Amino acid sequence: MSLLNHPILEQSFAVIDREIGEHNFSPAEYAIVRRVIHTTADFEFATLIRFSPGAIENAIASLQRRVPIITDVGMVKQGVAGMVSKTFGTPLIAAVEEAPVPLPGKTRTETGLMQCFELFPDAIFAIGNAPTALLALCAELPKAPVQPALVIGVPVGFISVLESKAALANTPVPQIRIEGRKGGSPVAAAIVNALLILAWEAYES
Amino acid sequence: MSLLNHPILEQSFAVIDREIGEHNFSPAEYAIVRRVIHTTADFEFATLIRFSPGAIENAIASLQRRVPIITDVGMVKQGVAGMVSKTFGTPLIAAVEEAPVPLPGKTRTETGLMQCFELFPDAIFAIGNAPTALLALCAELPKAPVQPALVIGVPVGFISVLESKAALANTPVPQIRIEGRKGGSPVAAAIVNALLILAWEAYES
Repeated sequence: MSLLNHPILEQSFAVIDREIGEHNFSPAEYAIVRRVIHTTADFEFATLIRFSPGAIENAIASLQRRVPIITDVGMVKQGVAGMVSKTFGTPLIAAVEEAPVPLPGKTRTETGLMQCFELFPDAIFAIGNAPTALLALCAELPKAPVQPALVIGVPVGFISVLESKAALANTPVPQIRIEGRKGGSPVAAAIVNALLILAWEAYES
Repeated sequence: MSLLNHPILEQSFAVIDREIGEHNFSPAEYAIVRRVIHTTADFEFATLIRFSPGAIENAIASLQRRVPIITDVGMVKQGVAGMVSKTFGTPLIAAVEEAPVPLPGKTRTETGLMQCFELFPDAIFAIGNAPTALLALCAELPKAPVQPALVIGVPVGFISVLESKAALANTPVPQIRIEGRKGGSPVAAAIVNALLILAWEAYES
């Protein structure tokens, strides 16, 4: 139980604990899974989530060093801003807001994300919406000397989403993914918020 | 096909059209359903959504009169701000941001929403997160001389969510609901955005 959570949230977690059944998640993984289920009321996420080995530990250490958090869109930023301000006050940037005008043939989110990756290659990248941004990031990773602390690859939808998640799975970058078409801004925000709590409570204690 | 939509969005809609199968939605209802499925990649929403008779027509007429849009939380506001600015430039308020301090025994969102309802009783209310806010609004409706143009009741989660949706269903207010535990900020935003497009395209033509 975390003081960073509202009592109603802890009640919701108790319902999820009762209903989720057997699982093999580590405590830290389960803290993330539970928050994702809370934000979607969709238990299918427990079967769709993937953690690369060491991803959570790496993210926690990086959050404690206050690396920036880069989101693809404003809704993800909005969804984590409250927890960021209650914990590390980490720099928080929505990529799409960095690119009022897209580069030719690219989306604004993709353009903004590549700008952010150039400035903050070791950041935590949380992609809840824009598969174009995730694809562009994955294409850049093999050439980049510095790798992100974590890539959260959970875009939602019907076009390029599966491809973008497959591209991420094929990189060695520390990552948390949702397989399939599901995902979205609240899922990305839930993962970041759960990591912030894990990092903050380890840091404070 | 709408000029307000990105080409990738129209491609996603084509996939949904192919996969959704037989349904009895009116064209306006389907425009909303399709956008909700797009934002969640979850076809179950087609079976969970409820429209009260005349709700869409009433909302369209109200948006054309530029009634304010009140959201419960910042993520819903963030999710509709772009479409609002491309269409009517409607006043847009996130209730929680109006209440830095909650009233005793109430949540901030509930406190802010009741303030907004006092100021703008005929607004469109989009509740994607906070069942407490939806419950408080439903308790107020029978006493209020002026009724909202529309209540979008789609909070997500495990505590008070079913109760809040049942309370809304028991009022005669024009409403769009998601039955069950599912819903969320992107669902609320998708419904508002679909309504804005319907209202704007009828207005412009």
